[in-house]
Amino acid sequence: MATYKLLLLAGDGIGPEVMGEVKRLIGWLDAQGIARFETEEGLVGGASYDADKVSITDATMAKALAADAVLFGAVGGPKWDPVPYEVRPEAGLLRLRKDLALYANLRPAICYPALAESSSLKPEVVEGLDIMIVRELTGGVYFGEPKTITDLGNGQKRAVDTQVYDTYEIERIARVAFDLARKRRNKLTSMEKRNVMKSGVLWHEVVTQVHQREYKDVALEHQLADSGGMQLVRWPKQFDVIVTDNLFGDMLSDIAAMLTGSLGMLPSASLGDIDPTTKKRRALYEPVHGSAPDIAGQGAANPIAMLASFGMALRYSFDMGELADKLDAAIAAVLAKGLRTADLKSEGLTVVSTSQMGEAVVKEL
Amino acid sequence: MATYKLLLLAGDGIGPEVMGEVKRLIGWLDAQGIARFETEEGLVGGASYDADKVSITDATMAKALAADAVLFGAVGGPKWDPVPYEVRPEAGLLRLRKDLALYANLRPAICYPALAESSSLKPEVVEGLDIMIVRELTGGVYFGEPKTITDLGNGQKRAVDTQVYDTYEIERIARVAFDLARKRRNKLTSMEKRNVMKSGVLWHEVVTQVHQREYKDVALEHQLADSGGMQLVRWPKQFDVIVTDNLFGDMLSDIAAMLTGSLGMLPSASLGDIDPTTKKRRALYEPVHGSAPDIAGQGAANPIAMLASFGMALRYSFDMGELADKLDAAIAAVLAKGLRTADLKSEGLTVVSTSQMGEAVVKEL
Ligand SMILES: CC(C)[C@H](C(=O)O)[C@@H](O)C(=O)O
Ligand SMILES: CC(C)[C@H](C(=O)O)[C@@H](O)C(=O)O
Repeated sequence: MATYKLLLLAGDGIGPEVMGEVKRLIGWLDAQGIARFETEEGLVGGASYDADKVSITDATMAKALAADAVLFGAVGGPKWDPVPYEVRPEAGLLRLRKDLALYANLRPAICYPALAESSSLKPEVVEGLDIMIVRELTGGVYFGEPKTITDLGNGQKRAVDTQVYDTYEIERIARVAFDLARKRRNKLTSMEKRNVMKSGVLWHEVVTQVHQREYKDVALEHQLADSGGMQLVRWPKQFDVIVTDNLFGDMLSDIAAMLTGSLGMLPSASLGDIDPTTKKRRALYEPVHGSAPDIAGQGAANPIAMLASFGMALRYSFDMGELADKLDAAIAAVLAKGLRTADLKSEGLTVVSTSQMGEAVVKEL
Repeated sequence: MATYKLLLLAGDGIGPEVMGEVKRLIGWLDAQGIARFETEEGLVGGASYDADKVSITDATMAKALAADAVLFGAVGGPKWDPVPYEVRPEAGLLRLRKDLALYANLRPAICYPALAESSSLKPEVVEGLDIMIVRELTGGVYFGEPKTITDLGNGQKRAVDTQVYDTYEIERIARVAFDLARKRRNKLTSMEKRNVMKSGVLWHEVVTQVHQREYKDVALEHQLADSGGMQLVRWPKQFDVIVTDNLFGDMLSDIAAMLTGSLGMLPSASLGDIDPTTKKRRALYEPVHGSAPDIAGQGAANPIAMLASFGMALRYSFDMGELADKLDAAIAAVLAKGLRTADLKSEGLTVVSTSQMGEAVVKEL
């Protein structure tokens, strides 16, 4: 049995708690002889700042580069609001994305049947929803230079951020999205603001070219990002795969996640190119929810998004699609039985702790 | 009776149809001796391009500068997709905003009781919703330089947009928002991405300072724009006034509008400083919906957003708050009677045309 190297970066807030449930699952898979993972752990975000005054150390970055995949919890919290911008918790995550060149962020927005009722949207609008948002993750306004605050004197400052996209960056993310659409319902919607932004003009042009040259069999549609956001709220089932830039993707994928009523359940994968050493596609997996400092340490966090992120790792990094399917089915079964963590509690259902939920999923498996 | 100078820029698509209903209303107000407006008309957007090869002429801009207020319909449509970027329909609107220095865009998101059912959200989530989004409108990535596409050779291009904010720009929009909050429920939520953007860092800092110095009586809260978007979908009633930058405001205000189920009903006001000549606050009023080219020319458009935009002009430009209240009440009454344009048709209600709806509102007044 092959052994894969996993780096676990639990981070801050509820990160360590939900990561604990992945460790439980990994232990069980090993004990059953189903799959074996060699795990290492490291600090990131506020936890890393507290220990080493940086949001991620070079040593941890080296481990991330050497691993077959990284599992990431969550970072941030009010405790670190006062720390300098360069070493704020989020900088650790951004460095991982950039240095591992994880340009493709896959964010499925799925409405678990058992949870349709907990959405703020009408059940008929979200029941059965299954869309995939493909967000560009290493370009755009997140990393463009200049990115500065300048003192202009007279009490005035000027802040500048720069949105930059090159043709090749748009081409490669478009290909990821078209490939995914082919395996799904064969429809891709590209979103930008070409009526206001030059990067939107180039985005639209390049996606159209890639479509014409390589993916004529996929139905391609373009929407302006603002009206795309509206459509997402109005009738999300019109979408299959959505491809968009880093900042629009940040907003739109969060909104899509919230629509489903399943925020605490949604995983994400951030993928790069094949690593020349490990021969694996560079990858990091993280839940869509954040570090939720208000409920950290209480055993109240929902571990499902983290477990499902590990499921995406099984699928995309380790070619264990069947096991991933089983894990997804186990999660759905536990929910159908009426088990809920506190974030989703409602009358007639059984509220369980983080570890009880993790145990239940493993048992179901 | 004072006479006010209004410039009517109907624009493209359904713009002329909905503007027609404002003209009807203005005619009636005049005939009744209630209020008198001297109106001029001009071309903007695709209509202006077709006539003059620019999205707005200098002559029309001069009229806009001389008017007491501008009423704007909508611009754009697939017909003008191939026109050069500099003269695309939207450029006309952007020039109006910039040259009139309309830095404060007020977008109320109100759920008309009669329309709660037509939202994709659960009625209890949107019933009674009344929030105000204050969007900065003349800065940020919309106007920052450089804004270019450069040919790098080898089939590669690079697109650049620049997000720029100066202290004074954030201060003045924050004041508009705090002032509005004081007249409402005294709560302001500021949204940015200070964890990723330097403009977000400055935004957060300046809004906090203005609060400390001038508006300690208003409750101020900060949210990251992505999680703010989620909160808007999850439980919009937590908000009173939201202040945010140009691009986030574009996305968030559209999403808020869609939540209400009342997209075809929502007006907006874009305000600048007091004009030294007219002694009036520079202002442009426009519906939130777009040009809807697919239904243009069929008499199917909903004129209510345009009429309500005129209502905002009465309130903010002409100090006719009482008349504006009456207009709002007339709109609500017509809706309560079950009259709907095609965008909102549903069983048991009466579908009326654009002009029938306009007539009904005037009659109710
Ligand atoms: C934590 C933050 C830097 C991050 C982002 O903005 O990308 C988060 O919101 C996300 O979507 O993964
Ligand atoms: C038409 C377009 C330029 C405009 C914008 O992006 O500001 C529109 O979406 C709006 O919100 O008024």
